[in-house]
Amino acid sequence: MIILTLNCRSQTIHYHLFDYPNPIPLTQGYVEGIGTHSTNCILNGSPLLLEDHHDALDYILKTLCHPEYGVLDSLSQIRGVGHRVVHGGETYHHSVKIDVEVLHTIRKVERMAPKYNIPSRQTIIAAMELLPDVDHVAIFDTAFHHTMPAKAYMYPLPYEWYEKYRVRRYGFHGSSHLYLARRAAAHLGKPVEQCNLITIHLDLGVSLCAIRNGQSIDTSTGMTPVEGTAQERRCGNIDPGIPGFIMDWEELSPQQIEEVLNEKSGLMGLTGGDCTTRQEVLIKAEQNDPRAKFAAQIEAYRLRKFIGEYLCVLGQCDAIVFSSGQGNIEADVRRRVLDGMDCFNILLDEKKNGQPRCIHSEIKISHPDSAIDLLVIPTDEARVFCEDTAQIVNGTFDPTRHISYTFDDL
Amino acid sequence: MIILTLNCRSQTIHYHLFDYPNPIPLTQGYVEGIGTHSTNCILNGSPLLLEDHHDALDYILKTLCHPEYGVLDSLSQIRGVGHRVVHGGETYHHSVKIDVEVLHTIRKVERMAPKYNIPSRQTIIAAMELLPDVDHVAIFDTAFHHTMPAKAYMYPLPYEWYEKYRVRRYGFHGSSHLYLARRAAAHLGKPVEQCNLITIHLDLGVSLCAIRNGQSIDTSTGMTPVEGTAQERRCGNIDPGIPGFIMDWEELSPQQIEEVLNEKSGLMGLTGGDCTTRQEVLIKAEQNDPRAKFAAQIEAYRLRKFIGEYLCVLGQCDAIVFSSGQGNIEADVRRRVLDGMDCFNILLDEKKNGQPRCIHSEIKISHPDSAIDLLVIPTDEARVFCEDTAQIVNGTFDPTRHISYTFDDL
Repeated sequence: MIILTLNCRSQTIHYHLFDYPNPIPLTQGYVEGIGTHSTNCILNGSPLLLEDHHDALDYILKTLCHPEYGVLDSLSQIRGVGHRVVHGGETYHHSVKIDVEVLHTIRKVERMAPKYNIPSRQTIIAAMELLPDVDHVAIFDTAFHHTMPAKAYMYPLPYEWYEKYRVRRYGFHGSSHLYLARRAAAHLGKPVEQCNLITIHLDLGVSLCAIRNGQSIDTSTGMTPVEGTAQERRCGNIDPGIPGFIMDWEELSPQQIEEVLNEKSGLMGLTGGDCTTRQEVLIKAEQNDPRAKFAAQIEAYRLRKFIGEYLCVLGQCDAIVFSSGQGNIEADVRRRVLDGMDCFNILLDEKKNGQPRCIHSEIKISHPDSAIDLLVIPTDEARVFCEDTAQIVNGTFDPTRHISYTFDDL
Repeated sequence: MIILTLNCRSQTIHYHLFDYPNPIPLTQGYVEGIGTHSTNCILNGSPLLLEDHHDALDYILKTLCHPEYGVLDSLSQIRGVGHRVVHGGETYHHSVKIDVEVLHTIRKVERMAPKYNIPSRQTIIAAMELLPDVDHVAIFDTAFHHTMPAKAYMYPLPYEWYEKYRVRRYGFHGSSHLYLARRAAAHLGKPVEQCNLITIHLDLGVSLCAIRNGQSIDTSTGMTPVEGTAQERRCGNIDPGIPGFIMDWEELSPQQIEEVLNEKSGLMGLTGGDCTTRQEVLIKAEQNDPRAKFAAQIEAYRLRKFIGEYLCVLGQCDAIVFSSGQGNIEADVRRRVLDGMDCFNILLDEKKNGQPRCIHSEIKISHPDSAIDLLVIPTDEARVFCEDTAQIVNGTFDPTRHISYTFDDL
C-alpha cells in the first residue's frame, strides 16, 4: 500500500513515500524556499519559483511520477496521505482521518504554533485537491502526550486562562518520542507497555519525555514548542518576567518578542550569531571555540537537569534514549550530559559512545554495570506517520494499542 | 552589641532587635498597611495612618524605646542596622556597609524587583536620617548565589541582552539558604564547606538551592523571584510564549501581565481566588477540597522535579532541608514531595515527619537507612542579617568564610 507522508514548515515540505508495511521509504526529499526565488527545485538550470505550498506539493507529486526520476507510474497508486500536524490542542488524542471538522480545529489552535499549523493546513487543502480520491490523515505532535496527568500539564497560572484559552501544556515531537519508545522496547526485549523511559529528541527542536508503561507522563515542551530545554533557536525555560522587561526596554510587540524567543535564542542566541545551526555550534565546540563551547555546556546542563526531573517523576527507569547518533559531536553531547551520574548508577561506556557508526544505526552505549540502559536510536517520525495513515486507510487502526517493533525490523 | 534588622515590602516593615551575639532577638514585630488607613499600629484605639516607610520606621523606633513596652532606654544603644535588600544585581557578592554608591546600585537594579528594592531604598534613607550615627549594612538576597557558575546563571537568550541589560539568573532568598546550610552542617557534624545540600525555602516565596561544599551552585529563582517552582502567588516556570499570548488576548501591558504572574498566579491562581494564602490552600487540601488538593499536588510535583534536577547537578547529596515545619499541613507537603523516591534511597520516616512539634524546632525526618538525610529546619534570615551587620560594625566580617553554627546554639 503506497503511502505519502508530508511534514511542513513555513517555507518547506519534507516528504516520504512508503510501500507499507515496508518501513524503508521508496523515496524521500524536500522542497525548501517556498514563496521565494531560492527553492531547491530546478527547471532548466534555474531555481523554480514555487508560490505556495500548493505549488510545492504539485511539484513533489510530479517528481514522484516523473518518467525518468520518479518511482510511481501514476498518482492513483497512492492510497493515503499522512500529514504531520504540530498542534492538535486538547481535541485529538490520536491520528484521525481529516474532514472539515479536523481542518477547523487545526485552524482554531494555530495561534499556538503558527509556523507549523498554518502551512500544514494549506498543504492539506492542496493535497485534498490534488489527490481527491484518497484518505488524508492528520498525525498530531501533541497526541502522544495526551496521557500527561493534570499535575503535569497545568500551569500555576490563573485557572480562568485554562477555561477561556486552554492555556496548558501540550507537548510536541510526540511521533518521535513514540517511535523511540517502541524501538527502545525492542532493545529491552519487553512490551513497550512495560517500559519506563526517558526519551530525548535531539534535532533543531529538542525535547525530553518521561514515559511510564509506554505512555507519556511529562514532556519538556509546553503550550508551544518554545518551553523546555535550550534548543537550536528556542530559549526553553526562562524567567517569565523577561519577555515583559525586554518588550519595555527594546519597545517590542508581543509578536516581535515571540520571534526572538523562537528564532534568535537557544544555542544561536548564546553564540551571538557566530553559528547558524546546532551542528555548527557542536563542531566549533569540539574545536574549542569559547562561545560555542559555552553554548554546548548550557545545552548539556539543561538536558541533564531534565533527566534528573524525569528520574524523580518516573521513580524507576529502564533506559535513557538519545535520538541523535551522528558522529563524534553527538558523542560529546552525551558525555557532557551524563558525566558524573554514577551516583545514580548511570554508567556510560566511553568506548561504545565514541565509536563511529552509520547514521541510522542503533546502539547501546551504557556500561554492563549501569542500572539504566543508555541507548542511541536515530528517530524516524515518518515511519509513525506512515503506519498510522496506512492503518486508518485499511481500517486496522487501534489507538489504544502500541505497534510492537521487533529488534530486527529496522 | 544592639543590632536592628529591617525587612521591607511595599506596605510592610518587619524588624528584629538583637543583642549580638545572642541569636534570640530581644524583640521583633512588624508594621503593615503603610500608606493606608489599615495599619496594625494603634493610637488611642484607632489605626494610625503611617504615610510612608519613614513614618513607619519612626513608629518602630519609638516603640523600641517606649517607656512601658520598649526594650531600649535610648536609640543610642543601637550600634548598627541591617537592611535586607532583595536585588543586588551582579555588583555585590556579600553584605556591605551602605554608602551613596550602594544606594545608587540598589536603585539601578530596582526594575527587576520593584516591590522590594524601592521600599528598601526608602527605608534605608529614612534610617540613615533617624539613626545617623550608626553603620547601615545591606544584606542582599542575591549575594549567596554569586557562586553559581555561568552555565547555571546564563539564559539561552540573545547574548547581547546580557551585555546590555544584565539579563541573567541571580537567585533570591539567599540569606535563608545560607542559614539552612549552616544549620544543616551542624546536624551533619561537619563543616558547611564539606556539605552538599538541597535547601528548600518554603514561605510565601518558595525556592530551592543546590549547594556544593557550602556554596550555591544553582537555585530555582532567576532574574526576578517569579522564576522557579510554583509559589503562593508567583507562577514559576511557564512557557515563555504565554505572557505574549495573554497580552494579546487580554490586551494587557507588560506591567499588567507582570502583576498577574507575580500576584495572581501560583497556588492562588490555581484555586481561582478561593484561597488567599498558601497556608489556606494547604489546610483546605487536608480537608479534601478538590481545587486546593490539586494546587497542593502541583506544588509538590514541581518541588519534586527541582529536587531531581539538583540531585543530578550535585552528583552527591548529604541532606535535603525543608525550611518549614509548622503542623500537619507541612508534613503532608513533605510526604507528597518525597513519596516514591525510594529509588534514590531517599526514605522518609512517616512517624517522625508527622510528629507535632514546636514551631522553631529542628528535626531529622529521614529513616535511618536513607542515603540522604531529610531535615526540617525553620529558617531564620534575621539571624544572618544580624550576624553580617554586627561583624561589619566590629570589623570582623570575612565574606570568604562561613560562620560555623554548633548543634546546640539555636
